[in-house]
Amino acid sequence: MSTLIQEKLAQATQILDEFGVDLWLTFVRETSMSPDPALDLIAGVDMTWQSAFMVGRNGRHTAIVGFYDGENVRNLNAYDEVIGYHEGIGQHLLAVLKQYNPQRIAINYSENDVAADGLSHGLYLALQQYLAETPYADRLESAEQIIAAVRGRKSPAEVERVRQAIVITEQLFDEVEQFARPGMTQRQIAAFVHKRVDEMGLGYAWPKPFNPIVTCGPESAVGHAAPGDVVLQKGHTLHLDLGVKKDDYCSDIQRMWYVLDDGETEAPPEVQRAFDIVYGAIKAGELALGPGTPGWEVDKAARDFIVDNGFPEYMHGFGHLLGRSAHDGATILGPRWERYAGICELPVEVGNIFTLELHVVVPERGIMSLEEDVLVTTDGVEYLSTPQTALRLIRP
Amino acid sequence: MSTLIQEKLAQATQILDEFGVDLWLTFVRETSMSPDPALDLIAGVDMTWQSAFMVGRNGRHTAIVGFYDGENVRNLNAYDEVIGYHEGIGQHLLAVLKQYNPQRIAINYSENDVAADGLSHGLYLALQQYLAETPYADRLESAEQIIAAVRGRKSPAEVERVRQAIVITEQLFDEVEQFARPGMTQRQIAAFVHKRVDEMGLGYAWPKPFNPIVTCGPESAVGHAAPGDVVLQKGHTLHLDLGVKKDDYCSDIQRMWYVLDDGETEAPPEVQRAFDIVYGAIKAGELALGPGTPGWEVDKAARDFIVDNGFPEYMHGFGHLLGRSAHDGATILGPRWERYAGICELPVEVGNIFTLELHVVVPERGIMSLEEDVLVTTDGVEYLSTPQTALRLIRP
Repeated sequence: MSTLIQEKLAQATQILDEFGVDLWLTFVRETSMSPDPALDLIAGVDMTWQSAFMVGRNGRHTAIVGFYDGENVRNLNAYDEVIGYHEGIGQHLLAVLKQYNPQRIAINYSENDVAADGLSHGLYLALQQYLAETPYADRLESAEQIIAAVRGRKSPAEVERVRQAIVITEQLFDEVEQFARPGMTQRQIAAFVHKRVDEMGLGYAWPKPFNPIVTCGPESAVGHAAPGDVVLQKGHTLHLDLGVKKDDYCSDIQRMWYVLDDGETEAPPEVQRAFDIVYGAIKAGELALGPGTPGWEVDKAARDFIVDNGFPEYMHGFGHLLGRSAHDGATILGPRWERYAGICELPVEVGNIFTLELHVVVPERGIMSLEEDVLVTTDGVEYLSTPQTALRLIRP
Repeated sequence: MSTLIQEKLAQATQILDEFGVDLWLTFVRETSMSPDPALDLIAGVDMTWQSAFMVGRNGRHTAIVGFYDGENVRNLNAYDEVIGYHEGIGQHLLAVLKQYNPQRIAINYSENDVAADGLSHGLYLALQQYLAETPYADRLESAEQIIAAVRGRKSPAEVERVRQAIVITEQLFDEVEQFARPGMTQRQIAAFVHKRVDEMGLGYAWPKPFNPIVTCGPESAVGHAAPGDVVLQKGHTLHLDLGVKKDDYCSDIQRMWYVLDDGETEAPPEVQRAFDIVYGAIKAGELALGPGTPGWEVDKAARDFIVDNGFPEYMHGFGHLLGRSAHDGATILGPRWERYAGICELPVEVGNIFTLELHVVVPERGIMSLEEDVLVTTDGVEYLSTPQTALRLIRP
């Protein structure tokens, strides 16, 4: 754990230099109730009282934390100085700021990127109070670019962890294929996956009640609904959206099956065509994905493919970053809609791991939805998941 | 689950009326990465895109959420209207605000109370953007009083859940007493508890690496450290701080043992005296605890007792609220220090559940630390935990 923290802190120092920011200040409290996603990257331990984690462009790292949390931060061997306070953080914060004397101070707020928006409004006001009548109050700015880079540019060790999560997820899909039969409910299929995930001691990439999402035929709601009592039937599609968390890193993959009807040996043409178009759209997006491309352009390639083939466009983004969280913040491969403003324009970077995902609906049959996980390289794209190139079949 | 949500929403409406606030607006996004503690009280489901939960003094409840999250909110049967949007929340938010036309709008920020500070600074700025050039921008205020009341005044159903978590915790302490023997490390004792908690399918009231805290003799760090390799020895104290989460509600209890040395049949006088003083201080605090008393007065009663008996004062608060979280926000039974400003002055209310906790150190022997969980009633205090009235002994 703490090797990864040391790696990310060293990377953060370089990124501060790249953006000309002198100090990155992560200011938190009671993080088990009110977590700051950035804290996981640079400490990975929970804090109780108000705590300040300071990463300097000069390479110096200081933490000011409640006395009883000091030991855990010292054990990371990642901070040059760990100050454990008793009564209040204010005077310590000012003293350390004076040592750094930063001209530009980045703090964790962002209108657009949730992963860079860990500072609560109340703590922002508290920070303003501490800094009142110092020159530092006017030097605060958003850390969104810094966090997007630290979080988004995965180190080799981080990529390896995502890879391991994916391997297990694909194994689980194989097990589901053996398990699922017509007559089972969404709930039964989800329960099977839960049993296996829990047995293996894995975590969930998003909350367990909605993970996996299991969609059976045309009756299931599309989206983030909890698996219910809809029954898997012959002649319908089965869709799973599953993400596990292993060693703090996530997978997020969607897979498709068709349940053969009596006398069928393959899916009917309209189901097969829907698969082909969804597969083709992912391929079109993949070909548009590369370092420097703004997110919306990648989405547009996939979206145009869908629309050009006569399907209605999907009402979500084509992909998101993946890492410590399933939705790992920052850059979205999404259309230029209000809710993607500021994040769909960001450029794709080497080391980013993205999902590529979209769906269409086949009337009377169910949804057709795929999702792959890919790494952006200097050349383009490396698949971390084993792409689904053919519709999988369930034989009753 | 959703009965509890309906109960809390009805209670929230009454509380809005009590404070003369027209609308309570909880504004969130990607809550599995960036949770708002207040959302658990009024929805208990995770949201993906920007979402607004509006509780009206007029008894009307509206949710505006991303299209794919709509189903989960509708399933709560707790909101009169659930609007699922596709492209952006802005226009819907303004339209619904116009219907309510509130004069006072409470939003979730607080400098002092983490449980009322779920609104991120970035979302606060986004909200300001949406409301720009409307009369509502100037009508925003902190919801800290409302959240403190909704969260702090436990319904009978909530008290029952805490009670159940406590019953299991006390059972676990009994099991630890059978298990723990001199020669074992902190880590071994913690692993035993983890095994049992996991077997029972329970959650942890705070993160598992630091739950339970296991303190063996004088070498262990006091506070929030992860259990390490310190060995339990004869003539030393053993201390556990354990909290489980069952049906979303928590326990938080500390218990003390003394490991008899060869030839001993009871603890040495200095150990026994430390227990008596800590027990007496909790009793002194309990007697000061009742509806209307400011938190700091309760702390002072316990603190004075410790100091009057010649021990140094403990460098933390005497108690905190307990419920959905171990540290359940709002009122602190703590001294008037900088870090308790604004929360140690709050009055104790009927229906609050508090921890009562403090420690002293016995040189060469280890710490002596107790923690009880109590409910505030109209008359004073009801113990939810079975108070530890005598030092427990481990016979090698």
